[in-house]
Amino acid sequence: MTARQVPERLEALTAPRTVALVGASSSPGKITARPLSFLLRHGFQGRIVPVNPGRAEIMGVPTVPSVADIAGSVDHAYILLDADPALTALEQCAEKGVAVVSMLADGFAEAGPEGLARQDRAAAIARDAGILLIGPNSTGVVSTASGFVCTTNAAFAAPSIARGGTAVLSQSGSVIGTLLSRGQERGHGFSTLVSLGNEACVGVGGLGQLLLDDPKTRAFQLFLETIRDAEALGAFAEGARQRGKPVVAYMIGASEEGRQLAVSHTGALTGGRAAVSAFLREVGVHEAQQFETLIEAPRALSRARLPAGRPRRATVISTTGGGGAMVIDQLAARGVEIGGLSDAARAELSAQGIPLGHGKLVDVTLAGTKYDTMRAVVDRLVCDPETGVLIVAVGSSAQFNPELAIAPIVDAAREAPEGAAPIVGFPLPHAPESLALLEAAGIPGFRNLEACVETVALLMRAPPGPRSPSAPLPVAVTRHIDTLPPGVQSEAASGIVFEQLGLARPRTLLLGSTDPLPEAIDLVFPLVAKLVSPDLPHKSEAGAVVLGIANREELAAGIARMKASADSHAPGYRLKGVLVQEMCHGLGEAIIGITRDPLVGPVVTVGAGGVLAEIYRDTATRPAPVTLEAAREMVAAIDGFAPLRGYRGHPEGDLEALAQAVAALSRLALDPRVEEAEANPVAVLAPGSGVLLLDALIRTAQRASG
Amino acid sequence: MTARQVPERLEALTAPRTVALVGASSSPGKITARPLSFLLRHGFQGRIVPVNPGRAEIMGVPTVPSVADIAGSVDHAYILLDADPALTALEQCAEKGVAVVSMLADGFAEAGPEGLARQDRAAAIARDAGILLIGPNSTGVVSTASGFVCTTNAAFAAPSIARGGTAVLSQSGSVIGTLLSRGQERGHGFSTLVSLGNEACVGVGGLGQLLLDDPKTRAFQLFLETIRDAEALGAFAEGARQRGKPVVAYMIGASEEGRQLAVSHTGALTGGRAAVSAFLREVGVHEAQQFETLIEAPRALSRARLPAGRPRRATVISTTGGGGAMVIDQLAARGVEIGGLSDAARAELSAQGIPLGHGKLVDVTLAGTKYDTMRAVVDRLVCDPETGVLIVAVGSSAQFNPELAIAPIVDAAREAPEGAAPIVGFPLPHAPESLALLEAAGIPGFRNLEACVETVALLMRAPPGPRSPSAPLPVAVTRHIDTLPPGVQSEAASGIVFEQLGLARPRTLLLGSTDPLPEAIDLVFPLVAKLVSPDLPHKSEAGAVVLGIANREELAAGIARMKASADSHAPGYRLKGVLVQEMCHGLGEAIIGITRDPLVGPVVTVGAGGVLAEIYRDTATRPAPVTLEAAREMVAAIDGFAPLRGYRGHPEGDLEALAQAVAALSRLALDPRVEEAEANPVAVLAPGSGVLLLDALIRTAQRASG
Repeated sequence: MTARQVPERLEALTAPRTVALVGASSSPGKITARPLSFLLRHGFQGRIVPVNPGRAEIMGVPTVPSVADIAGSVDHAYILLDADPALTALEQCAEKGVAVVSMLADGFAEAGPEGLARQDRAAAIARDAGILLIGPNSTGVVSTASGFVCTTNAAFAAPSIARGGTAVLSQSGSVIGTLLSRGQERGHGFSTLVSLGNEACVGVGGLGQLLLDDPKTRAFQLFLETIRDAEALGAFAEGARQRGKPVVAYMIGASEEGRQLAVSHTGALTGGRAAVSAFLREVGVHEAQQFETLIEAPRALSRARLPAGRPRRATVISTTGGGGAMVIDQLAARGVEIGGLSDAARAELSAQGIPLGHGKLVDVTLAGTKYDTMRAVVDRLVCDPETGVLIVAVGSSAQFNPELAIAPIVDAAREAPEGAAPIVGFPLPHAPESLALLEAAGIPGFRNLEACVETVALLMRAPPGPRSPSAPLPVAVTRHIDTLPPGVQSEAASGIVFEQLGLARPRTLLLGSTDPLPEAIDLVFPLVAKLVSPDLPHKSEAGAVVLGIANREELAAGIARMKASADSHAPGYRLKGVLVQEMCHGLGEAIIGITRDPLVGPVVTVGAGGVLAEIYRDTATRPAPVTLEAAREMVAAIDGFAPLRGYRGHPEGDLEALAQAVAALSRLALDPRVEEAEANPVAVLAPGSGVLLLDALIRTAQRASG
Repeated sequence: MTARQVPERLEALTAPRTVALVGASSSPGKITARPLSFLLRHGFQGRIVPVNPGRAEIMGVPTVPSVADIAGSVDHAYILLDADPALTALEQCAEKGVAVVSMLADGFAEAGPEGLARQDRAAAIARDAGILLIGPNSTGVVSTASGFVCTTNAAFAAPSIARGGTAVLSQSGSVIGTLLSRGQERGHGFSTLVSLGNEACVGVGGLGQLLLDDPKTRAFQLFLETIRDAEALGAFAEGARQRGKPVVAYMIGASEEGRQLAVSHTGALTGGRAAVSAFLREVGVHEAQQFETLIEAPRALSRARLPAGRPRRATVISTTGGGGAMVIDQLAARGVEIGGLSDAARAELSAQGIPLGHGKLVDVTLAGTKYDTMRAVVDRLVCDPETGVLIVAVGSSAQFNPELAIAPIVDAAREAPEGAAPIVGFPLPHAPESLALLEAAGIPGFRNLEACVETVALLMRAPPGPRSPSAPLPVAVTRHIDTLPPGVQSEAASGIVFEQLGLARPRTLLLGSTDPLPEAIDLVFPLVAKLVSPDLPHKSEAGAVVLGIANREELAAGIARMKASADSHAPGYRLKGVLVQEMCHGLGEAIIGITRDPLVGPVVTVGAGGVLAEIYRDTATRPAPVTLEAAREMVAAIDGFAPLRGYRGHPEGDLEALAQAVAALSRLALDPRVEEAEANPVAVLAPGSGVLLLDALIRTAQRASG
């Protein structure tokens, strides 16, 4: 898409001059009757052409028998026909030169091989014709400014659709209705809502990019069942961040059952959740854990912004001890740093006749629930350089006396100087009037404790750093990979790659498969010996490893024993040699791996070594490659490295060298031929002594891309 | 409290014939004016006597100058005075024979030593006079049936208070208003609401017991900042369970900050969260993790009950794929088993012309959002023996067409036979009409996804088993404890107790502090030697342990080395002997410990041994003692025992013996003199070989009660 095309496409998407409703029904009860009815109801000013060969008019609007019969140009068509006729209609749209087509039908990628073939066909038609294809399996597109309510979703039967700054991009067609309904009830307004369905051509990322410069859109609300265009999503998120437009996403797949359902119901291929969450975080998408947060956070984050220089810390004021304590408890449980009242602020407020206690909660108490008291405390705290965000938890006065506790917040916010701390309101009781006052003043007001604290936690989280390019892969590595056959590489071959990346291995002797054992072995005993074979990926299980070899005789015996064991374990295995290494004990062990997630691409993972770390899933994952700084953060996030940080008197380990190894290894992701790579275990030595790679595995792509 | 007293007290608490408002103000703006105003507004039919020496009447009600001046008897007094005059008024109530007194003032246990002395005084007055004292720091008592709205909480300024089945017991005075306001807005009604404040005399448990047989109360809603009467709370919960009245509690203290705040703001002593949660679960209190769940779950659990014989499994029907998938995803993430459509049900429904897919979600789809389709599917599934609870997630039709998707649920529920599966409704959009229809039909309807799934998870959780008494503590153990001085016991002395409980130790030789080393040592080398001394609680750090002793000479040298090390580590330490044991390596290690939680009393904890298990907090805790069956469940809950269960080819360990050891050790809690006991490490041997106690520690109470 060129820069010139964007405004045109955006207009065809959200405010077409002519829309065709292909397959519009005249029966009011039918789903396919809805788009026309909604367009009329919501005052769409463009031209509407229902395409229906069986009727002369529908709801008073003249029809045409086919797309080809439409006079003049068509910007947008919503095809409401079943799968096969929909394909025919799409071809007609291509001939007609329609810019944007959305398709309702199911029976595509989610419906087996035949459906997949249909979807490929639809994508090819759209691509060849330069059509922006939304769907299939799309409940349509809605844009409030133009009254373009072109959807089959029943939620848009609402008498009016509130205009506002939130753009909804959802892979589920029903959820756009849920988000509209729930948001509207709270006074939230929407710019554009799109049901993306199967995303045959354009996904959430691509459509998000199209909407980036839409002046009406100030925040994005994403409901995801999968990720089909990770690269575009990353570029969209980066663009949104540059424009100060928050992107909040809720994604199904917290559980295995959820992931399976995502597959069954939209034809999505769903990967590991850790990789997806790491990706979203890396590109700067706010991932909501709760659906309620998805509803509240986009608007709240577009209104409450942390000015530069303010600390990432929350201060809680309350008129109710129990309520305030609850907010602090939940914020802290989500890792938000809690600020209190500075000594200076306490002294100043005390001098104004407002005594406040010393705990972390700034509790004005029921007695302090007066305009002047609240106003003085809020005024003081929003300007205090120690305040990050100010959360005001208001008790019963929020329900019956907004003038006592809500009005001073609103006034303080309005008159706060540039750079003041943002304010968030949380009325404890059911308090629609207070929420409306906060809403009108542009102050995020929450009705739900958990969504309030999760949104504040998102606001307090540091944005991802700039994605500085990591060092390139050394040429020697690329050249070595050129020589590798596709598939799983031997430890010896893999180890060379890792050595070229700067990872030390124990001193090693590689014997050819038929070499005699040398008389003098230039290594320090004890040794470890392993068979080298492409047919023995799990050497321990094959008996192809011997540890603790004390002398040359034990080495000879050990090699003989390994060969016998491997013969019985994998008869006919190909022996490529014997790897002999100095045996090495680190102060601790780690695992470093690169994988390619089917949804979000290459990720690097680091974890503590050993079976317990595996059981406890104590790992950190990020999109690969990572910089050294990111690698340090990953290592710091591993609880199981506590002993290596000196926990309980344990000798410290060289975790800086481990971070360097993570960064170095992560660069392997830059070579598309590397499907997987794993250093496991990595022995962590004393500070300054580095790390040692004890075993290595690389798998290259079956079809070398050279 | 005798059985005879309960109805009288309950009446004095909730429907007194005469209530005195001591310190009632005549200024409408004052908090102390509220109780009289609320009692008048809500039509309280009893006699109200404001006590105020400065006015002849308030709001038209004649006053008296003091409690003593009240003609006739007084059942209930709400003392609205500051701390010191409140004590005087309490004395007057005692003289007058008032049955129930609630007190508003703060300045008691939460306010330092002086306040604590005041509180002790108040408790003594109440106890001596047989007064049921609510508070201090109580915003009062409300009972809807009698219009007894005797509170200072501003939320009760609502024009009416809905009557219903939920009793609220809150340690926070402001939160009763929050719960009322939020519940009422949803059409929930309340029986009684009590603000318990500092609980000088009666706590949540005690007051709950008083309300157990209140016919108006069908569920309990608890807001806790601490637990002050664990035993009474346990008895209350047990009583509620017997009567089928669910008890749901939300407790502040998920974070350290929250625990500190609980301390600062109600004078609560807060213990470890794991112990408290284990206690609540054990006694059958449903702990809500989300505040929203506290609002919804009491009523929902009193309406949706799992009939005997139904599986603990949730089946989800939806009219919207995305919404249904979201519900299943979140249920499964909380460990709820998901049911699908049985083959029989699928065949029957298909024969009725209702084709349904094969995934775990029973998705009737938008096309199936018709009365007849929904009705047939719900009818079939509530009767299916494979259904536990049926959750119906309804899309946009819930907002605009309740007759299509909600009406059939309501009708199916009404006509469902005895023993049918309970139904829960979750409209995806904002759908007040649908929620009201569900509410009126007695079907729990949720507006919040997270509260819906958490409530269903609580419903699906098996209730605690009957608290079968564990085996008593062997007499030999009690006798041995008789001989112990208070304080930390030596490993030798502690080990004897554990041996008497049936825990094997490695073969051991105990040498007196001045004994010469015997010529022949009747143990299998290698050995471990440790100094026995009450002054060396951390033997490793004192150099008072030697491992891997290969022969008698090394033993002699080791003993000498330990003595020298201990001399320099703790000069003047008392040497009681030398413990010599066969060195033993298990297949894995565990830790078992007994502690006394300050809130909920004795608990037993088991965990994997070693530093990683400690870092990952991989432990299971329950109130002690536990039965063998409970101990087995605890052991099964430890992820770190996966290797001992054979994970990745690791040799299995004798986890049954470990469970026996947990049950045996837990019985030490039966002796009140045992403050702490720990077996750490416990070596787990091969199946059939048991476990071996490698180190043992007991701490007895400083003031022996035996």
